[in-house]
Amino acid sequence: MPVVFPDVARGAAGAREEPGDVLGRLAEAYRRIRRTTERLVEPLAVEDCVIQTMEDVSPTKWHLAHTSWFFETFVLRNFDPSYVLYHEGYPYLFNSYYVQAGERHCRDRRGYISRPTVAEVMAYRRHVDEQMLRFMEEAAPDVAQQAAPVIELGVQHEQQHQELIMTDIKHVLSVNPLRPVYEAFENEAGDTAPLTWVPFDAGIYEIGHAGGGFAFDNEGARHRCFLEDFLLADRPVTNAEFMAFMEDDGYRRSEWWLSMGWAAVQERGWTEPFYWERRDGAWWTYTLGGMKPVAPDEPAAHISYFEADAYARWAGARLPTEQEWEAAASACSPSVEDAHFLENAPMHPRP
Amino acid sequence: MPVVFPDVARGAAGAREEPGDVLGRLAEAYRRIRRTTERLVEPLAVEDCVIQTMEDVSPTKWHLAHTSWFFETFVLRNFDPSYVLYHEGYPYLFNSYYVQAGERHCRDRRGYISRPTVAEVMAYRRHVDEQMLRFMEEAAPDVAQQAAPVIELGVQHEQQHQELIMTDIKHVLSVNPLRPVYEAFENEAGDTAPLTWVPFDAGIYEIGHAGGGFAFDNEGARHRCFLEDFLLADRPVTNAEFMAFMEDDGYRRSEWWLSMGWAAVQERGWTEPFYWERRDGAWWTYTLGGMKPVAPDEPAAHISYFEADAYARWAGARLPTEQEWEAAASACSPSVEDAHFLENAPMHPRP
Amino acid sequence: MPVVFPDVARGAAGAREEPGDVLGRLAEAYRRIRRTTERLVEPLAVEDCVIQTMEDVSPTKWHLAHTSWFFETFVLRNFDPSYVLYHEGYPYLFNSYYVQAGERHCRDRRGYISRPTVAEVMAYRRHVDEQMLRFMEEAAPDVAQQAAPVIELGVQHEQQHQELIMTDIKHVLSVNPLRPVYEAFENEAGDTAPLTWVPFDAGIYEIGHAGGGFAFDNEGARHRCFLEDFLLADRPVTNAEFMAFMEDDGYRRSEWWLSMGWAAVQERGWTEPFYWERRDGAWWTYTLGGMKPVAPDEPAAHISYFEADAYARWAGARLPTEQEWEAAASACSPSVEDAHFLENAPMHPRP
Amino acid sequence: MPVVFPDVARGAAGAREEPGDVLGRLAEAYRRIRRTTERLVEPLAVEDCVIQTMEDVSPTKWHLAHTSWFFETFVLRNFDPSYVLYHEGYPYLFNSYYVQAGERHCRDRRGYISRPTVAEVMAYRRHVDEQMLRFMEEAAPDVAQQAAPVIELGVQHEQQHQELIMTDIKHVLSVNPLRPVYEAFENEAGDTAPLTWVPFDAGIYEIGHAGGGFAFDNEGARHRCFLEDFLLADRPVTNAEFMAFMEDDGYRRSEWWLSMGWAAVQERGWTEPFYWERRDGAWWTYTLGGMKPVAPDEPAAHISYFEADAYARWAGARLPTEQEWEAAASACSPSVEDAHFLENAPMHPRP
Repeated sequence: MPVVFPDVARGAAGAREEPGDVLGRLAEAYRRIRRTTERLVEPLAVEDCVIQTMEDVSPTKWHLAHTSWFFETFVLRNFDPSYVLYHEGYPYLFNSYYVQAGERHCRDRRGYISRPTVAEVMAYRRHVDEQMLRFMEEAAPDVAQQAAPVIELGVQHEQQHQELIMTDIKHVLSVNPLRPVYEAFENEAGDTAPLTWVPFDAGIYEIGHAGGGFAFDNEGARHRCFLEDFLLADRPVTNAEFMAFMEDDGYRRSEWWLSMGWAAVQERGWTEPFYWERRDGAWWTYTLGGMKPVAPDEPAAHISYFEADAYARWAGARLPTEQEWEAAASACSPSVEDAHFLENAPMHPRP
Repeated sequence: MPVVFPDVARGAAGAREEPGDVLGRLAEAYRRIRRTTERLVEPLAVEDCVIQTMEDVSPTKWHLAHTSWFFETFVLRNFDPSYVLYHEGYPYLFNSYYVQAGERHCRDRRGYISRPTVAEVMAYRRHVDEQMLRFMEEAAPDVAQQAAPVIELGVQHEQQHQELIMTDIKHVLSVNPLRPVYEAFENEAGDTAPLTWVPFDAGIYEIGHAGGGFAFDNEGARHRCFLEDFLLADRPVTNAEFMAFMEDDGYRRSEWWLSMGWAAVQERGWTEPFYWERRDGAWWTYTLGGMKPVAPDEPAAHISYFEADAYARWAGARLPTEQEWEAAASACSPSVEDAHFLENAPMHPRP
Repeated sequence: MPVVFPDVARGAAGAREEPGDVLGRLAEAYRRIRRTTERLVEPLAVEDCVIQTMEDVSPTKWHLAHTSWFFETFVLRNFDPSYVLYHEGYPYLFNSYYVQAGERHCRDRRGYISRPTVAEVMAYRRHVDEQMLRFMEEAAPDVAQQAAPVIELGVQHEQQHQELIMTDIKHVLSVNPLRPVYEAFENEAGDTAPLTWVPFDAGIYEIGHAGGGFAFDNEGARHRCFLEDFLLADRPVTNAEFMAFMEDDGYRRSEWWLSMGWAAVQERGWTEPFYWERRDGAWWTYTLGGMKPVAPDEPAAHISYFEADAYARWAGARLPTEQEWEAAASACSPSVEDAHFLENAPMHPRP
Repeated sequence: MPVVFPDVARGAAGAREEPGDVLGRLAEAYRRIRRTTERLVEPLAVEDCVIQTMEDVSPTKWHLAHTSWFFETFVLRNFDPSYVLYHEGYPYLFNSYYVQAGERHCRDRRGYISRPTVAEVMAYRRHVDEQMLRFMEEAAPDVAQQAAPVIELGVQHEQQHQELIMTDIKHVLSVNPLRPVYEAFENEAGDTAPLTWVPFDAGIYEIGHAGGGFAFDNEGARHRCFLEDFLLADRPVTNAEFMAFMEDDGYRRSEWWLSMGWAAVQERGWTEPFYWERRDGAWWTYTLGGMKPVAPDEPAAHISYFEADAYARWAGARLPTEQEWEAAASACSPSVEDAHFLENAPMHPRP
């Protein structure tokens, strides 16, 4: 896939900035994103960072190196003629799937690579950080103008990998029979209100990224769509509601499932959501805070598309389309302060 | 498989010993074997000890824990009523295939287990060592008599795992494109004499363990076999000789191979011995000292049964049977002092 | 999946009919569809009707029996209390995936079943035909009213299996190195006009089955969608055009392909459309008339979604969406008389 | 594998014959073996002869053609310059694994080939028969001398394929839920005597083909072996005895099984001998005469090596080695007239 770089010569507000200002703003974003990544891996042992428990999982060490390789390859080696490659073997090891950026190591063998060690990867990160910050301070205006969109993309790319690090390390820790804890937390008490339905009127809606600020290529272009009248639930389905589906033999009745979903149920032996376990007659679930009883009021999580679809059919409803979802979400004005972002941990759904 | 314990109430010389003397001798052997294991893993990084690069490979960390689990389970928990299990989760994780000793973790997922960490496993080893040495000092004569064969087996078992540690870590390091070094060494110069054939006469030979000292169950019982006249080469086949087979299209001519061997050649794409690589028109091989040019005078190594068999047929000979080999080996009286054991490293075939 | 029966108490024109008239009309449709199926298999040898060359392919014999089983199970056994099951073992063998209709034989083993023989299956068909025609003549009005939609569905179902028979038998014959002929034909000469683009205006379009006559459940319900301005080619892509894509390294350049498509190209080694073969520097293709040189003016066929998508991207266009396609197709009023249906063979795309 | 032709210029008695006499004797053997093959397939439907129910099974049609291809390729095309190949596509389709005889069709896809039809294959057989009989009558003495060992091998080869035809067709018919009958028969009544042990003395035994008449290459060369004292049962293990092993949880207790055998038990879910089925609390078995209750006095059949080995260990014995078996069998002089050969059907073990 070609690497397509965004036009980021405009800030979020859409106002055109001077190249120097852009790099100053990006240097701040760069520092923040790199610091956040490293904070996420602090609770981990060296051993946790090395292993790969399924093909879709990458070792934490690989994520730490790959995000640095991105800046080294697409910024430093492209725009800074004085930059010297840190290690000859790293581009091969830490390229992911950027076909144009050269040969790369097989994805399903990332867990076979013990060296460089975690300490060596962290030294690589520090080296790339020093060089990137120096570059962003010293770059001539025309170079800055060219490099800025690439740096912006690199920052967004590292944020994506933060999601992957957390997704992957949850799997890594969960397959260990000792079920180790990433970071302890207390479940929040909650009392879920009865579900009500929010109506939306038939009509033409505009969806897709509207321009101004960064967006990934699959978020555009802005376009119109027609939606018939529909109703959307005013809150997520809870664990208690999902357990009612399970108790009604939801995983054993083919009539609720799409054909591919039913095949998945049978081939993989699905009988409950991922990370759930039955212990002494009660449902428990693996969380980043260790094994916990399933909390009835929390939103159901780790539900595949097929499970969500089957649940909806059982409940006499259906899943919203992507278009309905975006139209409905755009029509809301939630309070961001109360939202459940990375900054207000724990990393677990809240009632 | 049932765990069968040897009769080790006799020393190597076959003389019956007092139980106390036996445990004293075994304590010394215990200390030596445990020290050797730990010396073998000293050159490794923590990261090296965690990963599993194929189903047959176990992580070093697992070997370190499993050999300790053996003493904990079969000696301490069996013979010392005061012993308290070190960690509830360890028996499940570190049992290998002793069906009678309870449920166990899947072999092909040993590389998915980041915890306990290497440091925690080393603490487990130290705990088992202290308890074992205390037990061997304090055991009452009747307990000593019962425990001695189990301890002897545990010592032999740990020695087997030393072989596995080295076999496995060679694979682990070799699949890394950086081809890291375990311990650097210089190849020894050598000048191989022309191969000559040693004759053995037809007749009845006795083979199998003759009693006195420890033996594994597949080494007995002593029995007779008839061998026809045969000739055995007086030294191993060298790399130079094996390369002549390769240059004569040995890997591409079905007539040299057993049917299963030829299937393996085609399915796995065999074109050279394991660990060999072609670089700039020359053969290199991965060794525990890193990548090295293939030395013509060294014995050919990492040759599968099928490759050895095909080579022999190409060379106008055949492989010796197990019976021929044992009869021939028993007839030699080599100088042990000159032999290439663990004590006189490097871990690499010598010319 | 539940079997959902359509409301077919109305003819294609939507006018309500008397139950008796409905069954009379359906008996005629029944005779026609059954006769057509048997005409399709006439050119086949008994041996052709038995084998299964991939999981998605069913033996012709199975199709012949399964379509009869449908009428026996859902019409005769449901609505005619006097009907006696023809053979106890057939429901298990010839059910496909109607979970509610009982246990069934594994789909991927249909090619393992030599009995009943083809002649026995044809006798089964004749029996079902006699019983069905008798039933349609004798059914009381209320029974007729209930049975009619099921019979209509069975007729449509058998038409679907006619498509499958031809798709499957083409694969069956094609994997034979002798490349046998189903029915010989001459390619029609053709001279393709340059492609032009037909414009469609942005706006709200109605799509989906509009009621009146039979429709499958995935063809409804009627609903509105918004389409932006778009252009659609006025004829299919030809083999000559597709070969230009191939000659421009279309199958070797990742930039034209979706990520899943590119993975398919690499894993399956795609280098040309299915059924194409390179012989002496020219492209040939397997057809139901045997191997033939690829005709430049014929529409490209046996192109997967990924290949069509890659071709479109290479050609500077994109595939139409399902909505665009239906809106465009509904806007045309082609002459049906000239169309290339089953009745005017050969079974091969015409220029 | 190279095709190695035997020295068959001697009859079974070892007396040297004139070339003409040899071909006369072989023509008689040829006629007999070809007739027998065709008698074996008489009870089959065309459909039975086409399908392949596992990789190790070949369609009957393939066996019929392959044995003819053998004579065509190695006799007619080699020794008769006037012979014209019957069909260009047949050598590719009907070669098995004779690497030197050219490219060949994949073994696991023999069941994908509907053409040539069974009738066409029988025509091919008749053609080869005519040509072979003509050749054996007309061949000049020197050609006869060269061709005779090849014809002898071809006759033996066809006899091997008779075994395979019966083994394979039993599997083909058995996987059909209708369990069709090849040829009906009545089980013979029997009353098995208690098992007794026949002693053999330690000593040097000669084993292997002793020369004179045909032998396969793995039956020689004649050589000496030493056997310790051993006892061999005087009759096969019966179904009743094997059922006692099963009732004693033989398939669920790892201690009776070799490690690879136990793995097979678990991976493949073995709980009874192949072809056995539990119906209404009793054991039935598929035979060439259809499903029958397991007869207690018949020898246990369709037992794998691992099952036989586990049974023997459970029974406090062990399997004989190949050497012991041959030495013991050579020491017997059974009455051939009473033996259970092909000529005195049914094809089922007799008490």
